[in-house]
Amino acid sequence: MGTVPLLSDEEVSAEALAVFEDIRAVRGTDFINNFWRALAHDPALLKATWERLKVVMGPGDLDPLVKELIYIAVSTANGCSYCVHSHTAAAKAKGMTPAQHGELLAVIGMAMQTNGLVTALQVEVDEAFQA
Amino acid sequence: MGTVPLLSDEEVSAEALAVFEDIRAVRGTDFINNFWRALAHDPALLKATWERLKVVMGPGDLDPLVKELIYIAVSTANGCSYCVHSHTAAAKAKGMTPAQHGELLAVIGMAMQTNGLVTALQVEVDEAFQA
Amino acid sequence: MGTVPLLSDEEVSAEALAVFEDIRAVRGTDFINNFWRALAHDPALLKATWERLKVVMGPGDLDPLVKELIYIAVSTANGCSYCVHSHTAAAKAKGMTPAQHGELLAVIGMAMQTNGLVTALQVEVDEAFQA
Amino acid sequence: MGTVPLLSDEEVSAEALAVFEDIRAVRGTDFINNFWRALAHDPALLKATWERLKVVMGPGDLDPLVKELIYIAVSTANGCSYCVHSHTAAAKAKGMTPAQHGELLAVIGMAMQTNGLVTALQVEVDEAFQA
Amino acid sequence: MGTVPLLSDEEVSAEALAVFEDIRAVRGTDFINNFWRALAHDPALLKATWERLKVVMGPGDLDPLVKELIYIAVSTANGCSYCVHSHTAAAKAKGMTPAQHGELLAVIGMAMQTNGLVTALQVEVDEAFQA
Amino acid sequence: MGTVPLLSDEEVSAEALAVFEDIRAVRGTDFINNFWRALAHDPALLKATWERLKVVMGPGDLDPLVKELIYIAVSTANGCSYCVHSHTAAAKAKGMTPAQHGELLAVIGMAMQTNGLVTALQVEVDEAFQA
Repeated sequence: MGTVPLLSDEEVSAEALAVFEDIRAVRGTDFINNFWRALAHDPALLKATWERLKVVMGPGDLDPLVKELIYIAVSTANGCSYCVHSHTAAAKAKGMTPAQHGELLAVIGMAMQTNGLVTALQVEVDEAFQA
Repeated sequence: MGTVPLLSDEEVSAEALAVFEDIRAVRGTDFINNFWRALAHDPALLKATWERLKVVMGPGDLDPLVKELIYIAVSTANGCSYCVHSHTAAAKAKGMTPAQHGELLAVIGMAMQTNGLVTALQVEVDEAFQA
Repeated sequence: MGTVPLLSDEEVSAEALAVFEDIRAVRGTDFINNFWRALAHDPALLKATWERLKVVMGPGDLDPLVKELIYIAVSTANGCSYCVHSHTAAAKAKGMTPAQHGELLAVIGMAMQTNGLVTALQVEVDEAFQA
Repeated sequence: MGTVPLLSDEEVSAEALAVFEDIRAVRGTDFINNFWRALAHDPALLKATWERLKVVMGPGDLDPLVKELIYIAVSTANGCSYCVHSHTAAAKAKGMTPAQHGELLAVIGMAMQTNGLVTALQVEVDEAFQA
Repeated sequence: MGTVPLLSDEEVSAEALAVFEDIRAVRGTDFINNFWRALAHDPALLKATWERLKVVMGPGDLDPLVKELIYIAVSTANGCSYCVHSHTAAAKAKGMTPAQHGELLAVIGMAMQTNGLVTALQVEVDEAFQA
Repeated sequence: MGTVPLLSDEEVSAEALAVFEDIRAVRGTDFINNFWRALAHDPALLKATWERLKVVMGPGDLDPLVKELIYIAVSTANGCSYCVHSHTAAAKAKGMTPAQHGELLAVIGMAMQTNGLVTALQVEVDEAFQA
């Protein structure tokens, strides 16, 4: 499974290990999930991805949990199994309740459905919606 | 534009007009956007879609604005122009600030990016992420 | 509009013109839609695409109208505006009724919706479904 | 596997169990596939999804088998493994022959291919195709 | 796994076996990967797919390795696990270095990201970009 | 058109203008395309996107033209019209010939087609393809 092997701490470069250490410090856990262990084959890509993720998913004008819900929504529409799993776990860790999970699913399902209807109908954008 | 003509109030069936009236009452506006005018060719489908949308997007455990952000996220990943336009307008109407819009975009972009990386790497799901 | 100009009969190569003539003969009309006029920049690709389309969409174990409905379904999920337009027109020409169009939309919407629910839930495939 | 555990008949709520019983009655089998067991965490979502599915996939102006083919087409374009498996099984149960399966695949492949060509060429929609 | 069983050399038709033999001859290996063994249920579809693949992926104005990179890019965006695996293996066999693999991933990630940003912003195409 | 207005040089912040100036310097042209003018509403997102794009699409182990072809492939599969237009223009500016364009289209079409076939068949990944 995987198009590259997952790398252990002992196998990665010093640059990649420094990223692993930062992930551990920011997240307050020793656990490094498989995504980073696969990405570590390219330390520069690993570093750029993590540095950007840290900024984007950090505190801001949207609640961190809301950001995870958005992440799950995109990952679902794109059919990315790993991403759905990892960000659902992250959302639960950030306090997503079963009721919120159910509503997230309902909104995703509704959006998928109307995306299909609108596209099949090729509905013209209302003038009122244009910026 | 469109695979069916948009129907005016005068052209729709009584069943469809009743749905239009409910949309107007719930939203507190006379405006009926093009999606419903296209869907009105099939009054039963129009009614089922609106009845479900009303429930799903209404008050619940997730904030109505958060639901719109999730809707935009799904619609973006699916490439539905009309849906992006209409739900961005809805999000603004529900108070989305420019700063929140910017963060929404950043999270969508981040998710799209890692969806691509994960899929190209075919990363195996960590046991820790499985329910 | 378009990443290449559309080519008129006068502008295409002899090989491309021969494909145009076959399209006209098979379809019983002089009309050549824009897809073929864009593809004509690469006569070999034009020819291969048309030759294959003629076989795939021709008479077989599935009704030609059913094939158009499947084509619309795929094109909708992929968000291809041109394809939705052209194959909806083809389906109407092959006898698709408004009621059938409405049911097609309902099934597409249902499938999109459950695709989203299943993917967000990452439901494991039942043993009973495996070949 | 899965972002929520699958629920047995003993674990679901009374409302969810009532849906399970209706699924069994309508389908004439005791078998409840995993999708419903995952969705049962949110009985209201389970009920709404099943009630709608029953209507959409039931008898109408399109043949039930044709509806399954359309469902497979959408699920394939969206990359939903579970959905492809479950609706291919449903199509076989409704009489899809190997020859029809082969033609379904051929049409899906053709549509995917021309979706790509049209999108890469950004072909403008012919006036003749607009409603 | 699979919606049809994989067919061994002994189980396929004479027409399908002839395709297998051509695959072996062209690739210089006895190995027939699962895709062809699944497709062999429909010998005509198998033959048409292989004959076209042979032409498209063969020598031309683009380097065979470049064609594999494009194939991986499309397969990643479409979320096709099998295709990502098989064409990454093919790219490695054609000389893709780890550094090139890393750059491929970076470009895919960048494209996915800006696809999302552009779609969420619904940016109008610049006149300068139109053919 | 657009969910935000496009910003002129006079309307953007100093931080955004500095990014515009860098784009102009790197590309050797005064032209700023619409994507950046839309993104300028969020100067931090604009800057992060441009800084990353500059690295990813710059000189490396893959030819800059090859990177554009990969970008077009991803954008096509994701159905991003703007991206297909802008990166096709970029590819032409970097020397893509009509023959190469035709081969790019053929590979995209082939990949889309087999993505569909593989997904509909749910083909199991060969052991030989796993890293």
